[in-house]
Amino acid sequence: MSRRIQITFLGTSAGSPSIKRGLPAVLVSDGLREILLDCGEGTQHRLLRVGISVHRIDMILITHLHGDHLFGLPGLIASMTLLGRVRELKIAGPVGIREYIEANIKFLSALPFRIRLLEIEPPEKVTTLYREENFEIQCVTARHTIEACAYALIWRVPVGKFDPEKARKLNIPIKYWKKLHYGETVTLEDGRVIRPEDVVKVRHRGTIKIAYTGDTAPTETIIELAKEADILIHEATFSAEEDPHTIWKQGHSRTIDAAEIAKRANVRTLILTHISTRYEGIEEKLLQEAKTVFPNTHLANDFDKYYITTS
Amino acid sequence: MSRRIQITFLGTSAGSPSIKRGLPAVLVSDGLREILLDCGEGTQHRLLRVGISVHRIDMILITHLHGDHLFGLPGLIASMTLLGRVRELKIAGPVGIREYIEANIKFLSALPFRIRLLEIEPPEKVTTLYREENFEIQCVTARHTIEACAYALIWRVPVGKFDPEKARKLNIPIKYWKKLHYGETVTLEDGRVIRPEDVVKVRHRGTIKIAYTGDTAPTETIIELAKEADILIHEATFSAEEDPHTIWKQGHSRTIDAAEIAKRANVRTLILTHISTRYEGIEEKLLQEAKTVFPNTHLANDFDKYYITTS
Repeated sequence: MSRRIQITFLGTSAGSPSIKRGLPAVLVSDGLREILLDCGEGTQHRLLRVGISVHRIDMILITHLHGDHLFGLPGLIASMTLLGRVRELKIAGPVGIREYIEANIKFLSALPFRIRLLEIEPPEKVTTLYREENFEIQCVTARHTIEACAYALIWRVPVGKFDPEKARKLNIPIKYWKKLHYGETVTLEDGRVIRPEDVVKVRHRGTIKIAYTGDTAPTETIIELAKEADILIHEATFSAEEDPHTIWKQGHSRTIDAAEIAKRANVRTLILTHISTRYEGIEEKLLQEAKTVFPNTHLANDFDKYYITTS
Repeated sequence: MSRRIQITFLGTSAGSPSIKRGLPAVLVSDGLREILLDCGEGTQHRLLRVGISVHRIDMILITHLHGDHLFGLPGLIASMTLLGRVRELKIAGPVGIREYIEANIKFLSALPFRIRLLEIEPPEKVTTLYREENFEIQCVTARHTIEACAYALIWRVPVGKFDPEKARKLNIPIKYWKKLHYGETVTLEDGRVIRPEDVVKVRHRGTIKIAYTGDTAPTETIIELAKEADILIHEATFSAEEDPHTIWKQGHSRTIDAAEIAKRANVRTLILTHISTRYEGIEEKLLQEAKTVFPNTHLANDFDKYYITTS
């Protein structure tokens, strides 16, 4: 039994796009679901480029209602509508997300699918926003110029060896094997409920955790959220050379702020994103700044992929 | 004295984008101004690719308030804001455009520039929407499922030879030469008004005309609008093989409908755009259908450029 989570950076710029960097959006795929973190303008075009149908998106988590993180949402919903989606789409975001979506879907044909909206008052303490059997989304307030959320995605993964002989003996159709293999309980057509433990020798239970900040100044709340995460995706709009107080007042972080948060949260890997276009061509310098504080840092480029695997 | 108008297709798809075709947007550059026809999602990214700063856009003409023609507008305005535009931006579109823009600019910082809105009740007869000395925009109703405008851009161009000796003798600073050369009257710092005729031997006055339909079923109003145009950019969402009445009821045209309109309007060149993604790879067939009716037809691909020159 193993689990592979894939993170694809669809857009890594801040505010305005460049030829090299699109507007913020990160796709997280866990083999069973596809989750978008923010949805800047052009996200649907970038999904085409990475070969992910818009129908496969299960959930969109919007960190805050600034255009650069948001303006890809109406077009994505438009294409889902045109291409005949029927499956429910979940969208979470701070208060105001409902008004934004309603104001924009007026300019579309009637939706053939339901949008399930989770409108959030960003909480001061880390709070569970959504839960499935082995999967959970947490959120906490970030520190920006408007209400903003940071999110953590957490998988609880039974780790062990899948036994196909057992599965065959129990007459479990092959289409359910992947879910069981990924640690999800399934209900068969004949009504039997099969738990992963029925077909797998569980050695131990692991956890995979990804935290994503959206726009934020460095803040204790994100240290709480990101505690022991495998990957923290933290905004780093500015270089360490900028005056911290000016940057923080703008609700943003410098490279070394993000690195300090990663260190204090004891995460495994830090990935910097939301890179201001002013640094085009000198991203290596930004990366080195962060590495002086937190060595295991990466800087995201558009279409970069990262993987987390348990086995 | 001569004038070169450049047309760049930024997006040529219908409804939903493909890897090959972006959402509708056409850039018209006349050397003095840049005009966008429609503004589908991703238009600002495509402007980056063709090397046109968002600040250079003078005017945006929206044909109708369907998302695929519209959802690039908030992001474009956002980038103009972030990049410090001060110059007024003109936006024209059918009634509702104001509500759309107001609902979306809420999610931006305060605009440092003014938006001058021309909100149109699409007229039954061809009507002048905007006029400068040698340039005019006309509009007329199209035939779609919601209120929709088609636009014509018309330049009146004095054709003749620019005389730099005369310009030097009149002490006209070089920075005004291009405008005069392009047939525009200028007012110098010292208050003198210089007309193109003062520095050019005008042989005759020519006209350049471009018509653009947006989404429409074939209609007499567009024949009126496009009369004798140099270029008619007409939507051709569907193949000639489709049932015309079904297509027209959806407010769209087939290739041969667009060609028939071009023929009846006696235009010089027809360019088909708004190509449904279902025809990917068989566009040549669409083009041949139109050519049986109107031989001088082209089919637009993203980033295609067309030129019209008088001399």
